[in-house]
Amino acid sequence: MPYGYNGKILRVDLSRGAISVDAVDELFCRKYLGGAGFVSYFLLKELRQGIDPLSPENKLIFALGPVTGVPLPGSGRNCVGAKSPLTGGYAKSEVGGFWGAELKHAGYDAIIVEGKAENPVYLWIHDEEASIRDASHLWGKNTEETQETIRAELGDSLIRVAVIGPAGENLVRFACIMNGLKDAAGRGGTGAVMGSKNLKAIAVRGHKRLQVAEPERLKEFSHWLLANQQLWNSFREFGTGAAMEAGAASGNLPIRNFRDGEFPDASKISANAIRDTIRIKMESCYACSVRCKKVVKVDEPYSVDPTYGGPEYETLAALGSNCLISDLKAIAKGNERCNAYSLDTISTGDVIAFAMECFENGLLTTKDTGGIELRFGNAEAMVKIIELIAKREGIGDLLAEGTARAAQKIGKGAIEFAMQVKGLEIPMHEPRLKAALGLGYMVNPHGADHMDSLHDTAFTKPGPPLDRVKSLGILEPLPADELGPRKVSLSRYVQQERIVRDCLVLCDFVPYDSEQIANILAAVTGWKTNTVGILRVAERTLTMARLFNIREGFSAADDRLPNRFFQPKRNGVLSTKFYDPEQLEKAKSYYYTLMGWDAKTGIPTPEKLQELGIE
Amino acid sequence: MPYGYNGKILRVDLSRGAISVDAVDELFCRKYLGGAGFVSYFLLKELRQGIDPLSPENKLIFALGPVTGVPLPGSGRNCVGAKSPLTGGYAKSEVGGFWGAELKHAGYDAIIVEGKAENPVYLWIHDEEASIRDASHLWGKNTEETQETIRAELGDSLIRVAVIGPAGENLVRFACIMNGLKDAAGRGGTGAVMGSKNLKAIAVRGHKRLQVAEPERLKEFSHWLLANQQLWNSFREFGTGAAMEAGAASGNLPIRNFRDGEFPDASKISANAIRDTIRIKMESCYACSVRCKKVVKVDEPYSVDPTYGGPEYETLAALGSNCLISDLKAIAKGNERCNAYSLDTISTGDVIAFAMECFENGLLTTKDTGGIELRFGNAEAMVKIIELIAKREGIGDLLAEGTARAAQKIGKGAIEFAMQVKGLEIPMHEPRLKAALGLGYMVNPHGADHMDSLHDTAFTKPGPPLDRVKSLGILEPLPADELGPRKVSLSRYVQQERIVRDCLVLCDFVPYDSEQIANILAAVTGWKTNTVGILRVAERTLTMARLFNIREGFSAADDRLPNRFFQPKRNGVLSTKFYDPEQLEKAKSYYYTLMGWDAKTGIPTPEKLQELGIE
Repeated sequence: MPYGYNGKILRVDLSRGAISVDAVDELFCRKYLGGAGFVSYFLLKELRQGIDPLSPENKLIFALGPVTGVPLPGSGRNCVGAKSPLTGGYAKSEVGGFWGAELKHAGYDAIIVEGKAENPVYLWIHDEEASIRDASHLWGKNTEETQETIRAELGDSLIRVAVIGPAGENLVRFACIMNGLKDAAGRGGTGAVMGSKNLKAIAVRGHKRLQVAEPERLKEFSHWLLANQQLWNSFREFGTGAAMEAGAASGNLPIRNFRDGEFPDASKISANAIRDTIRIKMESCYACSVRCKKVVKVDEPYSVDPTYGGPEYETLAALGSNCLISDLKAIAKGNERCNAYSLDTISTGDVIAFAMECFENGLLTTKDTGGIELRFGNAEAMVKIIELIAKREGIGDLLAEGTARAAQKIGKGAIEFAMQVKGLEIPMHEPRLKAALGLGYMVNPHGADHMDSLHDTAFTKPGPPLDRVKSLGILEPLPADELGPRKVSLSRYVQQERIVRDCLVLCDFVPYDSEQIANILAAVTGWKTNTVGILRVAERTLTMARLFNIREGFSAADDRLPNRFFQPKRNGVLSTKFYDPEQLEKAKSYYYTLMGWDAKTGIPTPEKLQELGIE
Repeated sequence: MPYGYNGKILRVDLSRGAISVDAVDELFCRKYLGGAGFVSYFLLKELRQGIDPLSPENKLIFALGPVTGVPLPGSGRNCVGAKSPLTGGYAKSEVGGFWGAELKHAGYDAIIVEGKAENPVYLWIHDEEASIRDASHLWGKNTEETQETIRAELGDSLIRVAVIGPAGENLVRFACIMNGLKDAAGRGGTGAVMGSKNLKAIAVRGHKRLQVAEPERLKEFSHWLLANQQLWNSFREFGTGAAMEAGAASGNLPIRNFRDGEFPDASKISANAIRDTIRIKMESCYACSVRCKKVVKVDEPYSVDPTYGGPEYETLAALGSNCLISDLKAIAKGNERCNAYSLDTISTGDVIAFAMECFENGLLTTKDTGGIELRFGNAEAMVKIIELIAKREGIGDLLAEGTARAAQKIGKGAIEFAMQVKGLEIPMHEPRLKAALGLGYMVNPHGADHMDSLHDTAFTKPGPPLDRVKSLGILEPLPADELGPRKVSLSRYVQQERIVRDCLVLCDFVPYDSEQIANILAAVTGWKTNTVGILRVAERTLTMARLFNIREGFSAADDRLPNRFFQPKRNGVLSTKFYDPEQLEKAKSYYYTLMGWDAKTGIPTPEKLQELGIE
């Protein structure tokens, strides 16, 4: 068994009520690493083409990486994957907290959940033992009640749960899976897959401490972090979402469903405002010194339970500026509700903004909304709609389908308001500002994703990000709106760097660079490796995900941005910037070329598959 | 001025007798690094298309790298480049000794020699001053006499010279440039270019000690070397050419002009035999602890002057087994003569083997050879032919043209015996044993080169080379005779790793890996960089060299091996192994693809040029 792994994958067939363990060997671990690598492998290998993502034939994969659960900041995470009910393609999402580390300590490297339980169940995994338990009494409960009930009935308050609330049960296509109450495997609707299997939660407790190959070498990275606090101080002080005004000023902040460039209230919804008003503390994930997680408390006019943490940047923008809402307390309430119901806050915010634009354009009326004046800026409506979505009540049943499907049902040009790629709603970073970010949105196999894409503005001024770009041998200036081959090359590189993190599974907010990550992997596993070696795993992971999507009918035509990004913002910042379709297609084609995929079709060449050892 | 550089390129126009200095800035240094990178840049930028390599329009470039002259083992080297009189394309060759370090200490990073002096001259470069001096009295002299005369007349016995002997003067197309008497910039005929310019030598003396950015960090690499002597102990004990029997047994050793697989006398010409017989000591290059350079002395039947060092592996095989010669003393004499005349021992050996095969097949007769029985195994003839080549006397005048041109002149199928790629003679490693090595021979812009190519057998058994391959993420076995996409990818990677060394300019025998090299570069220059960053420079360097060749009329058709490698050896080892032409073409095409060159034509795509910042 290699260091950093248990060598065991737990396989749970809920249809048969059967639990088994697959052994994985060192070659397998080294080839796919874990996390997104495992997800890509198992989805490609085990899923039958064309299945309904919400049928028992889908598989739900919880994958750890070699660093999961080791004593290192950023190591508390896991990856969740499935065929996405939102996109019909590859879904993967990473999540923090403590659950991943706990599962590693309980003796497994991954869980593959298959089939569908006849009645609601939850899994109980405890020190290399696993059982399927009845969850009838938990069905319909929110995440907090579920967690507390399980802890009480198993008599252990330190149990960690991965859990869905009503949104997952009700098959909301963008339902997430919560690790505890504050951390979401947000994107792609894996919570709906969990709900479709009648699986309410996976409760985990473990006492195993894994040996790592070089403990002293591993410690150096924690020490390095402490010695370089300036690199993550902003995260420690504010969490995400600091200086929202700067985002509004640059044009990065989505406003009114990505249509506008003016939002004078940005400062009201920033992490700085949160610190000064509703924040009660900061918390951390497993073993992490960064401590970037806000906890907020509100008493009126909404009661916001601090047990659900506080809103991240994505949530602040999605439920805030993108809905033209500047009521911080309402946003905090919306965040709390999303976490209680298990809803992805990004897709939720985009869906509500979509509905608001439909409403203001007369494509939806109060008849559809049950009387709600679903206009931009209506904070109360936003909070209410979240509940309706989670419960699939009224207009919520339509919106629970996500923007792409809802737009199709509404018709009348509603698709123009659906801000999504492949069905996954766009996160809170503006591609008209950051040219390569849009390329990343287009080509990421799981749809529009901001974590696995390049943020072009990061390195336009002197500082560590620009130093990093130069360290990669890209020496001439790269303006944010430029999208030539050099930018595409950097974009592909950054995507792979991020995918490496998703394989290990290591947090993106801990500022290790790729050389450090290779050394962390070496310290944990004892493998000699380097940047080139770990990037190859990312290349393999992305190419397998691409193959999965192709098998499900995706083509190069699905790698496209919404029309809105080919027009300028209606006012304010970026009212003259937009994509040139031809330039963007060229960039996409060059990205394919760099990946070893056909420049036109985006299909991986047989040679590239052989090179990467994909069968 | 960046650390590690003087920021000055000395430009010498011999036609006008003018000396000037070009300043280079940090961006330039970082983008091209030095050595092969500088050579590629200046050849592509400054040479007019279609010039005669032996005309005044050719330029001869001596380029240092950022590590040249710093206190680090492997740092005494420089690169020499020009349009090759042998291939008509890109020539570059690296050379050790002390001259490169001395030039750095004299205040320059490179010398570009242009034009042609009316009468023989030499350059004298001394602590940021340079002058052109008469060399009429040196013309015709061998390298030792030249060096000693210059030292005497300038009154400094520590002067280092880059020098040509009669072979360079006589425009032997494979004449080399000697750094002192023991180290050759061997390949591609740069010595003839030097001769064509009436430039006999470049004498250098410098006292400047360059600051490096992080001296303590740099020292760590010397310490690491000392602590890991097992990695280079064989070089220290034997130099190159140890255990020649093993090479004969595996089939790596070329025998009888690459035709045969049997050579029972291998042990007689090995470095082990040298140690036990004619060796008097080992020496080192500048600042190096490896000390891999043999010094031999022979009194009879040949007198071999120890001042010329001793034969390397390439020489032992080229003048030995490849000519079916097992007389070690004769080989040592041949080596001494090559160094005295400034002849590349590899091309010289291949040319002689070629002539022997022509002779044995009746394509050359004693009429052509002036009575010499030019048969395989005739050691005396081998030594004699070296002299004739250097002086272009008799048959030597024909052979001085190199195998490709000589074969054309001889006709009657002699081309089948010319073991060369693009006109550059094949070095002493058998591609029928090492599949990717042949690919490297084919695609290297300077022709068949063993230093910038992958040696497939290195990682077929457990040990550091295999660990290294695994560290690159290539985990499944790669047999030596396999040439699928994974091997091609590794082959391209290794080529780039080697080119990085040629840019820094760092010796290949000091076992730093690419991560260490990136860190060495960072320690010297203060630049943050990493493997990905330095490989990008290699990619740029190779692509510029490719462009240079294309401009000179080369096409994909020139990336081909001699027919002999598509047939088995006539007897002994590898008598069943040979290339499948179709497989090899596929591998070549995939190499092009990985380089971002057109898969069929091998022409770099406009996007790749933009990506690499090549105008």
